[in-house]
Amino acid sequence: MQGQAQQQAYDRGITIFSPDGRLYQVEYAREAVKRGTASVGIRTPDGIVLAADKRSRSPLMEPTSVEKIHKTDDHVGIASAGHVADARQLIDFARRQAQVNRLRYGEPVGIETLTKNVTDNIQQYTQVGGARPFGVALLIGGIEDGSPRLYETDPSGTPYEWKAVSIGADRSDLQEHLEENYTEELSLDEGVGLALRTIAISNDDELTAAGVDVATVASDTEEFIELTNDEISAYIADNDLEPAEETDSE
Amino acid sequence: MQGQAQQQAYDRGITIFSPDGRLYQVEYAREAVKRGTASVGIRTPDGIVLAADKRSRSPLMEPTSVEKIHKTDDHVGIASAGHVADARQLIDFARRQAQVNRLRYGEPVGIETLTKNVTDNIQQYTQVGGARPFGVALLIGGIEDGSPRLYETDPSGTPYEWKAVSIGADRSDLQEHLEENYTEELSLDEGVGLALRTIAISNDDELTAAGVDVATVASDTEEFIELTNDEISAYIADNDLEPAEETDSE
Amino acid sequence: MQGQAQQQAYDRGITIFSPDGRLYQVEYAREAVKRGTASVGIRTPDGIVLAADKRSRSPLMEPTSVEKIHKTDDHVGIASAGHVADARQLIDFARRQAQVNRLRYGEPVGIETLTKNVTDNIQQYTQVGGARPFGVALLIGGIEDGSPRLYETDPSGTPYEWKAVSIGADRSDLQEHLEENYTEELSLDEGVGLALRTIAISNDDELTAAGVDVATVASDTEEFIELTNDEISAYIADNDLEPAEETDSE
Amino acid sequence: MQGQAQQQAYDRGITIFSPDGRLYQVEYAREAVKRGTASVGIRTPDGIVLAADKRSRSPLMEPTSVEKIHKTDDHVGIASAGHVADARQLIDFARRQAQVNRLRYGEPVGIETLTKNVTDNIQQYTQVGGARPFGVALLIGGIEDGSPRLYETDPSGTPYEWKAVSIGADRSDLQEHLEENYTEELSLDEGVGLALRTIAISNDDELTAAGVDVATVASDTEEFIELTNDEISAYIADNDLEPAEETDSE
Amino acid sequence: MQGQAQQQAYDRGITIFSPDGRLYQVEYAREAVKRGTASVGIRTPDGIVLAADKRSRSPLMEPTSVEKIHKTDDHVGIASAGHVADARQLIDFARRQAQVNRLRYGEPVGIETLTKNVTDNIQQYTQVGGARPFGVALLIGGIEDGSPRLYETDPSGTPYEWKAVSIGADRSDLQEHLEENYTEELSLDEGVGLALRTIAISNDDELTAAGVDVATVASDTEEFIELTNDEISAYIADNDLEPAEETDSE
Amino acid sequence: MQGQAQQQAYDRGITIFSPDGRLYQVEYAREAVKRGTASVGIRTPDGIVLAADKRSRSPLMEPTSVEKIHKTDDHVGIASAGHVADARQLIDFARRQAQVNRLRYGEPVGIETLTKNVTDNIQQYTQVGGARPFGVALLIGGIEDGSPRLYETDPSGTPYEWKAVSIGADRSDLQEHLEENYTEELSLDEGVGLALRTIAISNDDELTAAGVDVATVASDTEEFIELTNDEISAYIADNDLEPAEETDSE
Amino acid sequence: MQGQAQQQAYDRGITIFSPDGRLYQVEYAREAVKRGTASVGIRTPDGIVLAADKRSRSPLMEPTSVEKIHKTDDHVGIASAGHVADARQLIDFARRQAQVNRLRYGEPVGIETLTKNVTDNIQQYTQVGGARPFGVALLIGGIEDGSPRLYETDPSGTPYEWKAVSIGADRSDLQEHLEENYTEELSLDEGVGLALRTIAISNDDELTAAGVDVATVASDTEEFIELTNDEISAYIADNDLEPAEETDSE
Repeated sequence: MQGQAQQQAYDRGITIFSPDGRLYQVEYAREAVKRGTASVGIRTPDGIVLAADKRSRSPLMEPTSVEKIHKTDDHVGIASAGHVADARQLIDFARRQAQVNRLRYGEPVGIETLTKNVTDNIQQYTQVGGARPFGVALLIGGIEDGSPRLYETDPSGTPYEWKAVSIGADRSDLQEHLEENYTEELSLDEGVGLALRTIAISNDDELTAAGVDVATVASDTEEFIELTNDEISAYIADNDLEPAEETDSE
Repeated sequence: MQGQAQQQAYDRGITIFSPDGRLYQVEYAREAVKRGTASVGIRTPDGIVLAADKRSRSPLMEPTSVEKIHKTDDHVGIASAGHVADARQLIDFARRQAQVNRLRYGEPVGIETLTKNVTDNIQQYTQVGGARPFGVALLIGGIEDGSPRLYETDPSGTPYEWKAVSIGADRSDLQEHLEENYTEELSLDEGVGLALRTIAISNDDELTAAGVDVATVASDTEEFIELTNDEISAYIADNDLEPAEETDSE
Repeated sequence: MQGQAQQQAYDRGITIFSPDGRLYQVEYAREAVKRGTASVGIRTPDGIVLAADKRSRSPLMEPTSVEKIHKTDDHVGIASAGHVADARQLIDFARRQAQVNRLRYGEPVGIETLTKNVTDNIQQYTQVGGARPFGVALLIGGIEDGSPRLYETDPSGTPYEWKAVSIGADRSDLQEHLEENYTEELSLDEGVGLALRTIAISNDDELTAAGVDVATVASDTEEFIELTNDEISAYIADNDLEPAEETDSE
Repeated sequence: MQGQAQQQAYDRGITIFSPDGRLYQVEYAREAVKRGTASVGIRTPDGIVLAADKRSRSPLMEPTSVEKIHKTDDHVGIASAGHVADARQLIDFARRQAQVNRLRYGEPVGIETLTKNVTDNIQQYTQVGGARPFGVALLIGGIEDGSPRLYETDPSGTPYEWKAVSIGADRSDLQEHLEENYTEELSLDEGVGLALRTIAISNDDELTAAGVDVATVASDTEEFIELTNDEISAYIADNDLEPAEETDSE
Repeated sequence: MQGQAQQQAYDRGITIFSPDGRLYQVEYAREAVKRGTASVGIRTPDGIVLAADKRSRSPLMEPTSVEKIHKTDDHVGIASAGHVADARQLIDFARRQAQVNRLRYGEPVGIETLTKNVTDNIQQYTQVGGARPFGVALLIGGIEDGSPRLYETDPSGTPYEWKAVSIGADRSDLQEHLEENYTEELSLDEGVGLALRTIAISNDDELTAAGVDVATVASDTEEFIELTNDEISAYIADNDLEPAEETDSE
Repeated sequence: MQGQAQQQAYDRGITIFSPDGRLYQVEYAREAVKRGTASVGIRTPDGIVLAADKRSRSPLMEPTSVEKIHKTDDHVGIASAGHVADARQLIDFARRQAQVNRLRYGEPVGIETLTKNVTDNIQQYTQVGGARPFGVALLIGGIEDGSPRLYETDPSGTPYEWKAVSIGADRSDLQEHLEENYTEELSLDEGVGLALRTIAISNDDELTAAGVDVATVASDTEEFIELTNDEISAYIADNDLEPAEETDSE
Repeated sequence: MQGQAQQQAYDRGITIFSPDGRLYQVEYAREAVKRGTASVGIRTPDGIVLAADKRSRSPLMEPTSVEKIHKTDDHVGIASAGHVADARQLIDFARRQAQVNRLRYGEPVGIETLTKNVTDNIQQYTQVGGARPFGVALLIGGIEDGSPRLYETDPSGTPYEWKAVSIGADRSDLQEHLEENYTEELSLDEGVGLALRTIAISNDDELTAAGVDVATVASDTEEFIELTNDEISAYIADNDLEPAEETDSE
């Protein structure tokens, strides 16, 4: 009986309050985020690091097609966790907002402004009927007035600013690792290392260059740059995250 | 069986009357307010004090990103409790109303007028179908014709004017503390002190500057000012609200 | 089982007929009216008296913010009972109608005309889907062509004209008191006294000036006037309605 | 179980067919008509008589505010039974139709034409979703080309033409009385008498002038005229319908 | 349990397929047709006969107000069975179509064309949501290019052409009587007789002129003509359908 | 219980997926097709044959009014099985598409193009809410660039091209007969014979000219032609499909 | 009970989250894909191979009418698995997008761009109410800037890029076969062979030319080409996939 009532509970379309003041559809959308592989963002004085677990389902799938980190403007990148198709909608929305800002004001959009544009859009899907919430969390990182900024958006449409944060699978383990190892004086290089070691927690402390995306936005250049496979491999080796036996014969 | 019926009861989209004349969705939205950390507003002859509890979930989260007090116009601030993303919608609405008033009449919007614009907007979401009510309460404080005014809005869309009021978690305890300690002759400084001591009730009578937002709108300047961390720390020390052991090694 | 069916019964959005020809949502809205504190209207040859119980929930709440009587035009006032936010919508509607009438015809709107504009608006919310009925009753009083007129609107959208009437809590007791004590030859002063003694029935026959609103529209001046606290206090004293012990030390 | 199913049956918004080809919402709306006090219409060669029971709920209510008979155009009156607020909508609709007819064709609208405009409007509310049917029946009486015509509209939107008819409470008793006493040669005076005696059946064969509305549209003048209280009192006396003891001391 | 499921089945608004491929709302609308008194149409070489049972509910009701046969254009008449208010909608629709045809093409609309305009309109109400099907069947009879044509429309929106057909109450009995007695060489007079004898089956083989409508559209004149009471009485007498004792004392 | 759940299952308006990936409303619409009498289409090198069973419900019904085969353009015919009123909608849609094609491109529409226009229209009714699917299958046959083409549309909106196919009642039996007897070298005459013998399977191997429609579109003339009753009778005789005793006295 | 709850679960129209963060309607749409016969795509350095199982239901059905591979632009082809009518909608959408790209930018659309246009369209049907998701998966293959690209779209609207992939029935078996046999150095010819051998797994390792569609887009010509029956037969023979006994007498 429990099952049936539960079944009915989430089976109507509109996001409304439960007697204890919660929005069930939003909380279920958070579960969709947890079902996605992890993404990590780290803010260092030298810039932002975004890293994302993108283990492929099949050796025949192109690793590049599992996009978890997206260039949103020259100075902004977004990493996602959760429902992939929903992420694409929000990232396209963010790109259009960044373009509009450049056209209208002749300058790059602020990271906080961009984040709040996105969260306002997300909030609408939790209040007005006829659609479900977005099943995805985003990390929006970039440089604003020379300073690195890192934001998270969640399915309720709340923006949070972080020094370092993880979204998606195993969040509590990864976040605990970040809290224990993050310091405010990290170099960008050290930030990449910490990000990869954090991601590796979901992968038995092993990573391959094809299984992870890494991007940075440096404070000085203000340019979003995706690391090449070779660069990632070097970081993996430096951080002792190589798989025990990584042979083609396997 | 009880559970199932209950489940169904709040699971439809429109806000309608129960047989005893109550609006369940509005009452559930009030529960969402109670789930938020507390905000306090105090009116003194010298101006308005707004204070908000903003305990962070994680040491890596930027305390400034948990916005609980928002400048709405030069002479108005709004503190919120409840669903954060909903609060943002209403505060944006209030800002636009304040701007429109300046453009149309060439003068700052009245605090009562602004509040009623906001509550009329809230009421619509409780009567017309296709959306849920707002899960947030606001404290709207500012100076109108030289006099400090402090209003509360609740999820039903009712405006209340207060001398001193708290919204969010532990409301009855905090409000009782205000009733016992408020006098109409408080200085603005004393008002800040009372506000912090009230907020501290939810925190075992301890506060950190990073864990609380404070803002004032003075009657003479008519300017919304957010206190700096140092200023807040001084008030915390003055009011003996410092944590027993506040050391970095902890 | 009874409970579940009942729960479902009022949980759908549209106002429709029950098998015995009743409109449940309208009847539940009447319950919302009963949950509100009482308002009383009295018609005398010299003018209209409106009085409303506005007991505050807290000593820190500004009594003036609990608005139960509203000036609607120079010659019209409206008192309400029930859902406060709904009342505001209808009173704003009435004000706009009164303004439109002045603009279009160059003369004050008739009280009956105004009332029927309001009740037609209320009726729409009971017949067309997508919204709930208004959970409020109004007393609309004013002067039309030199004669005092007093109307009630209920949640069904039916207008009634009265010599003296009460709405809200304890209606049957208050109405009985009115029937026993009303005479057509009351002076306006006597009308205020009767109104206050009637309101006091809900308050153990005690009233404070802060706990009640009183307004009049005199037949000769045709002006809506709210009584000051001092004036109300005098009436309270004259009618022996003062609290047994009204001391600040309490 | 029966109760629950029934409850659900009428609890959805759209008017649709039951398995035996009936429209439940329309039949429930007919129950709303039966809950209203009775109205009677009588056609004589000399004109139309409309009479309506308007017992007041309270001695303080203005009898004139319980409007059951409405002048619709110079030559047409409408009496109603059932949901008062719904009746107002239809009567306003009829008035606009009559005005439009005068403007467009320069002549008074025909009674049959007017009735069918009204019933077409009623029918729409029984077929198209998003609204409930009208819970009211009307008697539309007037003079068309010198001849008196009397129509009934019911909640299904069906027009009926009658020599004499009653709607509302106790219809079968009142209609039986009309069938036994109506003759086609009644004078208008005799028609008023029959109408009052019929109405009186719902009132233990007693009537007061304040408790009944009477109007006529004479064939020669083609003017809708409401009888004064004195005129009605005379008819009541002539027909021995005075209350046994009508004393103020009662 | 059966009852409850059934109850729910017809209680939703949209007309959709049952597992065995039937449209329940359409079949329930057919029941509404069966609840109506019978109408009969007969095609003879000399023209169309339409006849309709219109037994009155009360001796005070004007027989002419129970309209079952309607002139639709000079050369077309429509008889109905079922929900009267629905019939009016379709007949008004047909009249507008006939007018439009005359305006656009300068000639009378074809009977088949007119019928299919009507059935296309009916079909829309069975496929698109937000409204219920029409609860009425029509007989559309007239002259097209000198030839008599007789069509039936049913609630599904299917057109049928007939030599002779009955709709409404007791259809199978009446249709059987038509099949046994119809021949293609009937004169128009004989057609009227057969129609009346068929209608009489629902009335214990007795008819009164006031209780039946008869109209013809002759092939030569192409004019819709309603028979007078006297003409109908003559046919009733000729066909031995007079009530056994038709006395006023009864 | 099974019954109730089932009942509810088809009782909501929107066509959505079941857990095993089926669209129930579409499958129920296929049942509506099976409830219709059969239609057969056969493609021969010399042209298309369409034949349809149209047994009448009554001897008084005009056989021609049961339209199962419709000329859609000079070179295209459509036969249907299932819900008759739905078929009319689709055939009107196809006719308009064919006309538009002639107007826009100055040439007859291609049979495949026309079919896909129709199936795209059908598909929309299976995906977008607010309407039910079409309860009809069509056979669309004609000549395109000198070659005969024969298509089927089903309620899901899928187009199929056939050499020979049956739709409606007893499909599996009729299709089996076609598979056993069809050869690609049939003359148009032989095609008509095979079509009639196939239709006859549903009729105990007996047919009357009035009970069947036959039409052809020859490859050389590219003209849709309906066979006369005499022509059909000759084919029936040639194929030994005459009823055992076809006498008027029966 | 399980069954009933399940039944209700998928029986509402909007795609929303379950408590564990899944979208049931999307998952059920994936079941619709599995119900379709398989399609296979293979990327070789020399171009793209698309192959599709299109076993016919009947020997009388034109094999060409079961379209599983569609030319979308000169340089792009799309193979589908699942609901055929839904596939047509998406392929038409893709064709229009490709045309618009040529018109707007004067160059062929990129394969990734085209895919993401399609998946964005698919995603909308999973988030916004009033329609169901598409029950189909697509393989979009073509040449972009001289390089072959192969994408899959699924019912959630997620794009994946593959070296080799199968969709539809028996996916896990077919995909396993691809993983074991695919190498990056395949020639286009070898790619066709691998595709056919993979498709044959669903068919007991037997294929006929009529039962399979094959198309290629070569890297040098950038032209979509469908293989003829003879060419397919040769490939079938070369790969020993001919049916054991393929005789007409069978």
